[in-house]
Amino acid sequence: MDIRQKALKVHKENRGKLKIESKIKVENKEDLAIAYTPGVAEPCIKISEDINSVYDYTMKGNTVAVVTNGTAVLGLGDIGPYAGLPVMEGKALLFKEFSNINAFPICIDSKDPDEIIKTVKLISSTFGGINLEDIKAPECFYIEKELKKQLDIPVFHDDQHGTAIVVLAGIYNALKVVNKKLEEAKILINGAGSAGISICKLLMEAGAKNIVMCDKNGALVENGQGLNEAQKSISAITNRDKEEGNLKEVIKGKDVFIGVSAPKIVTKEMVSTMNKDAIIFAMANPTPEIMPDEAKLGGAKVIATGRSDFPNQINNVLIFPGIFRGALDARSKVINEEMKLAAAKAIASLIDEKELNNEYIIPDPFDKRVAKCVSDSVKQVVINMNK
Amino acid sequence: MDIRQKALKVHKENRGKLKIESKIKVENKEDLAIAYTPGVAEPCIKISEDINSVYDYTMKGNTVAVVTNGTAVLGLGDIGPYAGLPVMEGKALLFKEFSNINAFPICIDSKDPDEIIKTVKLISSTFGGINLEDIKAPECFYIEKELKKQLDIPVFHDDQHGTAIVVLAGIYNALKVVNKKLEEAKILINGAGSAGISICKLLMEAGAKNIVMCDKNGALVENGQGLNEAQKSISAITNRDKEEGNLKEVIKGKDVFIGVSAPKIVTKEMVSTMNKDAIIFAMANPTPEIMPDEAKLGGAKVIATGRSDFPNQINNVLIFPGIFRGALDARSKVINEEMKLAAAKAIASLIDEKELNNEYIIPDPFDKRVAKCVSDSVKQVVINMNK
Repeated sequence: MDIRQKALKVHKENRGKLKIESKIKVENKEDLAIAYTPGVAEPCIKISEDINSVYDYTMKGNTVAVVTNGTAVLGLGDIGPYAGLPVMEGKALLFKEFSNINAFPICIDSKDPDEIIKTVKLISSTFGGINLEDIKAPECFYIEKELKKQLDIPVFHDDQHGTAIVVLAGIYNALKVVNKKLEEAKILINGAGSAGISICKLLMEAGAKNIVMCDKNGALVENGQGLNEAQKSISAITNRDKEEGNLKEVIKGKDVFIGVSAPKIVTKEMVSTMNKDAIIFAMANPTPEIMPDEAKLGGAKVIATGRSDFPNQINNVLIFPGIFRGALDARSKVINEEMKLAAAKAIASLIDEKELNNEYIIPDPFDKRVAKCVSDSVKQVVINMNK
Repeated sequence: MDIRQKALKVHKENRGKLKIESKIKVENKEDLAIAYTPGVAEPCIKISEDINSVYDYTMKGNTVAVVTNGTAVLGLGDIGPYAGLPVMEGKALLFKEFSNINAFPICIDSKDPDEIIKTVKLISSTFGGINLEDIKAPECFYIEKELKKQLDIPVFHDDQHGTAIVVLAGIYNALKVVNKKLEEAKILINGAGSAGISICKLLMEAGAKNIVMCDKNGALVENGQGLNEAQKSISAITNRDKEEGNLKEVIKGKDVFIGVSAPKIVTKEMVSTMNKDAIIFAMANPTPEIMPDEAKLGGAKVIATGRSDFPNQINNVLIFPGIFRGALDARSKVINEEMKLAAAKAIASLIDEKELNNEYIIPDPFDKRVAKCVSDSVKQVVINMNK
């Protein structure tokens, strides 16, 4: 039985992957009087007197909503809120398994960004944080921006920022391996959707200065044709040399290729036109932009993919459990750029110089140290902010 | 330490009462590939091909939303969605403990019925049923009516129907004890809010013909002043003799008093003006309309309250776990009048003639037979409907 068949079997046998359990037993009248009436009135009264005590007496402080509208699910695209539910349950399960956060799937049957924003806002009282998931670009940008403005709990679009943080962590270590500097590295990001743009922004936040973004129409150039709002903004701060042309042309002379695009669109010949000791992050899933062995033939030194069957897997599960754990524990109202940078550095720092090599730039998702080290670093940022 | 202090302690120590757990373990790469990418794509594809298979591959079929806006929480009134959360967690916990249903609190920060309806509709894909809770009248009527129309999953306002069903079950058995017939019994319902009106409707559905409803302004009479829409409708089918006057006046000559109103508004003198072998359901909480000992002094034969420290506790927990269990198992799209009547009869029938007496007309909430007997009876109704 292959993974696909096993997955179907496991989902069907269990009727999904999540269950809700009570933390306390209700076996007699006294239990009932404590958990429900009349006892439950006491925490209700406390919260009605001081709304912040909702964090003391309820599940809110350790509960995250996994919110989608099912418009950009995995590589499947717009399959809607029902078909998206298995992914949201899976995400919630990972929250639980990797950082003991209670996460619950909220699948919204709407493509209207304002309707989605309003829905999330109206039901946010139960939640200590909002993880946006698999919502298509460009709507996801606006939804995240508005929710951040309107809510006083952390809002985090994992497809953008989770990926960006793990990529940055990997890039930190990959550059160490080839002895290059982020500030000087020439970077090409192929794929100008939500993940690509978010990676670009975080790399710049971390100090990268030479980034060209590219999509199927070629390099993004300031005032170029057919760009959406997010692409217009990013094209105004990247590609300062106004490089033009398609992927094959703009990949020349780059130190780093970061792909969040499509299978097999990079050849070993293209890699060979890059600078010496090229770094390739080929993250199209399940088939990367170029297979690792081919990239190596083209001269690449460090190769990462989204897959678990090659070295250096770029996997969001390295980030979202820990970053939310830290934000919730510190009762932060936001997940901001500083917290993201701290998380990336924390992950990169888990691999010490002796261990670091071209096939080990990023920890394994099952490395038990990851979630704690991310959450500790994020908590520290919040503590420093509040000082 | 009294119950109130214990309740505060338990809520604080546990930070609420619910947790979300995964049904499957994720301990290695294969587990991850099955629960999340790439395996999770398989159930997604199945559901995108046939939306009904969402019941096979996800949590939907065993998950209920406990929806409130916090406007009528316990006896506390309009304390809002945050302060209402402990009650919703408690309700969810009872769903789990009594019938193994996953229930999750959705606390909506709105008093606009249309906004609430829209919000619930937009997030309904995750849920197999909607339990409305502690939403004030008259908004709760419109919200339930519209959601029933717009959704293809069961919608049930427990404060109305749960109470009504348990009351009917108790009345069935109380009438047996005093050897009177529902069709002939003269019934007074005091309290014309959502619970009172719902009790009235279900009693009529079950065959009751002589009901007078009363509230703080006295008996409801057709075309009376100051009635809301729900009260206008109910006054057109009750009190056909056009009895007028306050509670003290209209209680005279009744066989049954059902109170969902206010503490200590009925005296033993008032009870003594009722018919012989009077039945008193005094359900104001925590202090009943009349205390059982006083009602007995007034000549009442069967007395029920909402309290666990007296015999004959009218407790919704006898109903909602089983009725949702049955509806979910039968994959019913509704919870209708037939299902409610079947549930009431099922509960009443648990007490056989030998056991039945004036202090045992309704089973104990911890009677293990209750949830199964309710769910079986409800399932049977659905099976018969589908024949």
